[in-house]
Amino acid sequence: MMERIKVPAEGLTLRAIREITARTQAGDTAIHERTQTVLEAVRTGGDAAVRKFTARFDGVELADFRVSAAEMEAARVQAGANFISILEEACNNIRAYHERQAETTWFEECRPGVHLGTKFTPIQRVGVYVPGGTAAYPSTVLMDTIPAQVAGVPSLAVFTPPDRDGSVNPYILAAASVAGVKEIYKIGGAQGIAAAAYGTETVEPVFKIVGPGNAYVAMAKRLVFGLVGIDMIAGPSEVGILADDSANPVWIAADMLAQAEHDRRAALFLVTPSEQLAEAVEGEVRRQVKELKRSNIAEAAVNDYGKIFITEDKEQAVEIMNRIAPEHLEILFEEPASYIPAIVNAGAIFMGPYTPEPLGDYFAGPNHTLPTMGTAAFSSPLGVYDFVKRSSLLQYDQQAFTAVAEKVAVFADVEGLEAHGLAMRRRLDG
Amino acid sequence: MMERIKVPAEGLTLRAIREITARTQAGDTAIHERTQTVLEAVRTGGDAAVRKFTARFDGVELADFRVSAAEMEAARVQAGANFISILEEACNNIRAYHERQAETTWFEECRPGVHLGTKFTPIQRVGVYVPGGTAAYPSTVLMDTIPAQVAGVPSLAVFTPPDRDGSVNPYILAAASVAGVKEIYKIGGAQGIAAAAYGTETVEPVFKIVGPGNAYVAMAKRLVFGLVGIDMIAGPSEVGILADDSANPVWIAADMLAQAEHDRRAALFLVTPSEQLAEAVEGEVRRQVKELKRSNIAEAAVNDYGKIFITEDKEQAVEIMNRIAPEHLEILFEEPASYIPAIVNAGAIFMGPYTPEPLGDYFAGPNHTLPTMGTAAFSSPLGVYDFVKRSSLLQYDQQAFTAVAEKVAVFADVEGLEAHGLAMRRRLDG
Repeated sequence: MMERIKVPAEGLTLRAIREITARTQAGDTAIHERTQTVLEAVRTGGDAAVRKFTARFDGVELADFRVSAAEMEAARVQAGANFISILEEACNNIRAYHERQAETTWFEECRPGVHLGTKFTPIQRVGVYVPGGTAAYPSTVLMDTIPAQVAGVPSLAVFTPPDRDGSVNPYILAAASVAGVKEIYKIGGAQGIAAAAYGTETVEPVFKIVGPGNAYVAMAKRLVFGLVGIDMIAGPSEVGILADDSANPVWIAADMLAQAEHDRRAALFLVTPSEQLAEAVEGEVRRQVKELKRSNIAEAAVNDYGKIFITEDKEQAVEIMNRIAPEHLEILFEEPASYIPAIVNAGAIFMGPYTPEPLGDYFAGPNHTLPTMGTAAFSSPLGVYDFVKRSSLLQYDQQAFTAVAEKVAVFADVEGLEAHGLAMRRRLDG
Repeated sequence: MMERIKVPAEGLTLRAIREITARTQAGDTAIHERTQTVLEAVRTGGDAAVRKFTARFDGVELADFRVSAAEMEAARVQAGANFISILEEACNNIRAYHERQAETTWFEECRPGVHLGTKFTPIQRVGVYVPGGTAAYPSTVLMDTIPAQVAGVPSLAVFTPPDRDGSVNPYILAAASVAGVKEIYKIGGAQGIAAAAYGTETVEPVFKIVGPGNAYVAMAKRLVFGLVGIDMIAGPSEVGILADDSANPVWIAADMLAQAEHDRRAALFLVTPSEQLAEAVEGEVRRQVKELKRSNIAEAAVNDYGKIFITEDKEQAVEIMNRIAPEHLEILFEEPASYIPAIVNAGAIFMGPYTPEPLGDYFAGPNHTLPTMGTAAFSSPLGVYDFVKRSSLLQYDQQAFTAVAEKVAVFADVEGLEAHGLAMRRRLDG
């Protein structure tokens, strides 16, 4: 079952935590080569190459990759009025939260004769990849397109694989329709990433590609990075739970299993000063996991990557959790918000007994695309800031220039950059 | 000399611009293998391995890697009072500009019973790489450490290679001293990146590594990315200049050469509707380049990557420049600030005749670490935001939870995630 780790009084080092929480990496030499081949074929062959790979990998010959307005409308009907209204409410919540992230261009006289500023510009065209098949998540459409819209991205296209009959999952199209996305291509896999990055006869190239995908999609994103921007390459999901005796073990077990059902490599960390709670959670996990349809996946995750840390006290529990830097953190101590200042590494922080993690996956407003595998120590949830870039603004007038020109030239001299100095000095000469 | 491109009335496509502005890439299979070897040796061998590589690559046996307070003090004396005061003024300007980028944690009731927010936390420990040798730039120390300090990073270490006599360039140490950096290691190259990422007996590991470096440093950063964060991998420098007949060709040529002296692969783009100006700039470049000490480097850059685009009008010039997405953009049209809204892709925008690019390299305040090679289309200058990460904050009370729980569970059902639904429904059961 879950590994139990008794934390010593002196705590655990970052290195020790990294070893305990490490997950196997999928091997990728063959994937690298195959992906490279697809990218190169689409870069040089355009639509014809996309058509060929779609036939080979998705099993369907497509004349037209673009999803039509009629298909969008049919998908809304198929999704049903109840689900459409849930999508709309989620959409509103997500939009409202992300609007808090918008930033404004400024340009001001900071010193006499010196105007400085920052221009915020949306990325001019963005591609959003949405997986198909068994992992077709309409929530991904909302979480990846709404921040781009709030950022003001003027051109946005979704890429998603077709089914064998040439259709796209109706829930994905319904979510796109509710979010107001109109440009959707039935192109999946590495060929989808290639079409987005290089462009084809029918697809305009984009400047950034976001969204999750299988190993080929992830590899393709890595390989086109530099030509275009990408979001993070997400690893398997994880949840960390800080709890004491006041917490409900039935609910904790349910929350751990909600992560575990995603992936055999999902990780579950309970960090608690209470041996009694640890015992109870373990029993509940064992009981609940059997009842799940995906019990084989969930059980593998629990056995391989379920860990319970028993700490000296709550303070040490927080310290261990900061070293883990979980994607999702649930705080099930009393007065959970009082721990916010002490938490330094977590993608999203869910506080109290009535904020289970799935609320954040779909509905509450914050993004569900979060840093995994300890990367919360240095990175952030997907947000509006991922769809906007900054340009520095500088303007000196002649007097302000003259006052500092020689100092700047001396700096250039120190660095041995003669022509930098001359760019200043020639202007002093007039 | 510089290639001249007459832009047709219909403009140039992104693909065409990418071909014209493409630069050769340094080959890197051998570098990959050698770097991998160094990383692995330091990861497993710690200080002993660092010592071995320092002897081999820097030609010096070091007992202690840490720069002492006495060395710092000696460097200040060697740098001289005038240069120290220039560093201090630059430091103040850089700090003041970056303080505008600081953001504040918020946590509020956004809907009845629903508290949401964002916590901003500085990255807990950061490593700054500073190259040595002929490319030892004290400005790099200021530009990479000050934003981290403004972000509130509590622990920051500089890594820089020693000279053969075991010393560090005094201007680098003087800049670090003025910036208030105290933890400096004489460890360069891939072994410096490895020590920062994995830690050794004497070096605590960091969570993010920033700063420029040679091909081995860049490769090492790529390879440790994921375990730690990194900033961009900077390509060779470039300047784009928008100018009309009102501009001074002597100064334009000087500014182009200030980029060209950096690197044989530096790129220079003049985009102008004026054939006359193009002619004059070309003559000036030819004349001025001969006078430079680094004329061989500058001349190579001018010949290989100097391009002049002659456009129909200013509007088309702006369009071409947006497709180039230059690292540095100088606007030498009259009323330069009026073009800010139209510029969508540029790392930093220098406006008017008295704002040559070197002002931004050293002194004005904005960061000199900027997106190169067209990546300004999707990325930003280095800033405080690179040293801070966000955590989403969520807290529902029971009533707010109960009101939405079934909707969230239906969303989970649609995605086939049974355990996600159960995490909601078990709480409804109480």
